[in-house]
Amino acid sequence: MSAHLVADTLSEYGATTRVALADYLGPRRPQRHLYGLVADYPRRGGRMFRPSLCIASARVFGAAIDDAVRSAAAVELLHNAFLVHDDVEDESEQRRGVPTLNASYGAAVAVNVGDALAMLGLRAIIDDRLRFGPVLTILVLRETERMASESIEGQAIELGWRRDNATALTDGDYLGMVLKKTCSYTTIYPTRLGALIATRDERHLDRFVRFGFFLGAAFQIQDDILNLVGDGARYGKELGGDLLEGKRTLILIHLLRQMDAIERARLTEFLGLRRAERTRADVCWVRERIDAYGSLEHARQVAHAFAGAARHECTALFGGFPESRDKRFIEALPQWVIERS
Amino acid sequence: MSAHLVADTLSEYGATTRVALADYLGPRRPQRHLYGLVADYPRRGGRMFRPSLCIASARVFGAAIDDAVRSAAAVELLHNAFLVHDDVEDESEQRRGVPTLNASYGAAVAVNVGDALAMLGLRAIIDDRLRFGPVLTILVLRETERMASESIEGQAIELGWRRDNATALTDGDYLGMVLKKTCSYTTIYPTRLGALIATRDERHLDRFVRFGFFLGAAFQIQDDILNLVGDGARYGKELGGDLLEGKRTLILIHLLRQMDAIERARLTEFLGLRRAERTRADVCWVRERIDAYGSLEHARQVAHAFAGAARHECTALFGGFPESRDKRFIEALPQWVIERS
Repeated sequence: MSAHLVADTLSEYGATTRVALADYLGPRRPQRHLYGLVADYPRRGGRMFRPSLCIASARVFGAAIDDAVRSAAAVELLHNAFLVHDDVEDESEQRRGVPTLNASYGAAVAVNVGDALAMLGLRAIIDDRLRFGPVLTILVLRETERMASESIEGQAIELGWRRDNATALTDGDYLGMVLKKTCSYTTIYPTRLGALIATRDERHLDRFVRFGFFLGAAFQIQDDILNLVGDGARYGKELGGDLLEGKRTLILIHLLRQMDAIERARLTEFLGLRRAERTRADVCWVRERIDAYGSLEHARQVAHAFAGAARHECTALFGGFPESRDKRFIEALPQWVIERS
Repeated sequence: MSAHLVADTLSEYGATTRVALADYLGPRRPQRHLYGLVADYPRRGGRMFRPSLCIASARVFGAAIDDAVRSAAAVELLHNAFLVHDDVEDESEQRRGVPTLNASYGAAVAVNVGDALAMLGLRAIIDDRLRFGPVLTILVLRETERMASESIEGQAIELGWRRDNATALTDGDYLGMVLKKTCSYTTIYPTRLGALIATRDERHLDRFVRFGFFLGAAFQIQDDILNLVGDGARYGKELGGDLLEGKRTLILIHLLRQMDAIERARLTEFLGLRRAERTRADVCWVRERIDAYGSLEHARQVAHAFAGAARHECTALFGGFPESRDKRFIEALPQWVIERS
């Protein structure tokens, strides 16, 4: 039931957002090396989770869908800007089942395309001044700048772990990084933005941070799990790509904690290699150790606990509002994020 | 006389801007891998040409220096954001006499640091809402988004030339690229921004485009000349680095046009190599051909012509204003940009 509700809502709000996105992703010069590529990732067909959450949050707080749709488009543009730079920074090879922009066109073009997507997101917000007026528009821009800076800080923490070859990380370190890098723009920002648009009041927005953190952490941990066990064709990235990239996931942190000194030394050495130096055989060994130590099961349990906490927060935040499809959609998300495949 | 005036004004407005910059470049977590590096390029001591032009333009139009100083800081932050990404995209090795961020910390960290600088620039503009009010702040943000998008488009054109190994380029192609990539943020934006802050009216800003284009083109051509003949220690980049990077300068475009078919084929092959494949011996050959064909002299003449056109525009734009140091500073810039070493 609620899985259908989530799928139907994502489909509907996703389609609505795509109409608004067309204003920013149409042909424009220079098409080659820029605007043709700017439209690439958004066209690859993500789930539109973030813009849908923005629209649903706005509607729960009483806004019309038309009030939220351009903000939702901005959320999606900024999300894609992050993805493009993230792929450059991680030297990722696939995104949504197709070679990354950096793999196809080189890092230089990809960095510039990511910059263009960020500016288009900013433009979408500025365009909404005609609907929102200047005061609310400035509030939206402040929210956006804070969210982007948080994500950049989370990215710096994660990049630092790789550069330092950090292996003595705790679950708390991981969650602190995910709060900044993932939750800030995946869950906290869309929820806050929707409420801000509807209420025109920024003073009550901090109460969404805990909900967004719990939901976003469950989302990211499930993402890390899917990278190892998912259906590669549906998941759209290289299966096991996180291991090839040396990404510090909750799963890897658990594994490092469980291993004896000899195994940990071997894994530490593997993580210290450059990406191109890591062999498939090494990756297979790490993957096998993950099963042996139950690290996936540990991650599943943590994701489950965060989904439960998010449901609890949901009741506290939205329980007093009248029943609506948007409210049920938001309430169904914690379960959905850990069940999606 | 006027060289002193320019140097003194740059020194004074540069110092004033640095005070405002300190609000955005102080220690902040995470310091390693992010905010410690965010402050790196701005601390390397540029000439502060862009923020000084912004302040002078604002003052000519009647604003107080305090009204313009945070905008000037935003101009400088955004300029540094471009520099960091530009160095990643060009795989440059030196900036202001010191290894680039990408050379020292890798492309991944540098891309993220550039993103952070852009967001700090945005934050500086948003912070000015308390002084400007929301309506003017939105106008400043629109100017900023347009300028950034122009620069990104110019960058795409230039990156495309390298990817396509374009060699049949005209001076007009070069100038069209420079208008977008360099002039938009180096001269047009600071001048427009200063006037906008002072007058709170965006309707008269397009008249600065020609002045900014002429001044910015002279500036960029002189930069390209200095890359080949300047004092490396003072210039701060690898001397001849543009040749190593295969950069399509007015000088290189002139050379390609003057060469016979055999030489042009050799130069085309050189330009088609990856940066690491280009040898010092090849670079020396290109440098020697530049002298043989008078390509530097051609570039000097074009820069001189643009400086003259900028002076002419200056008179048309600012002639009616009362005498002031800021007016004399702006009027002296065309000569200064082609005489600086």
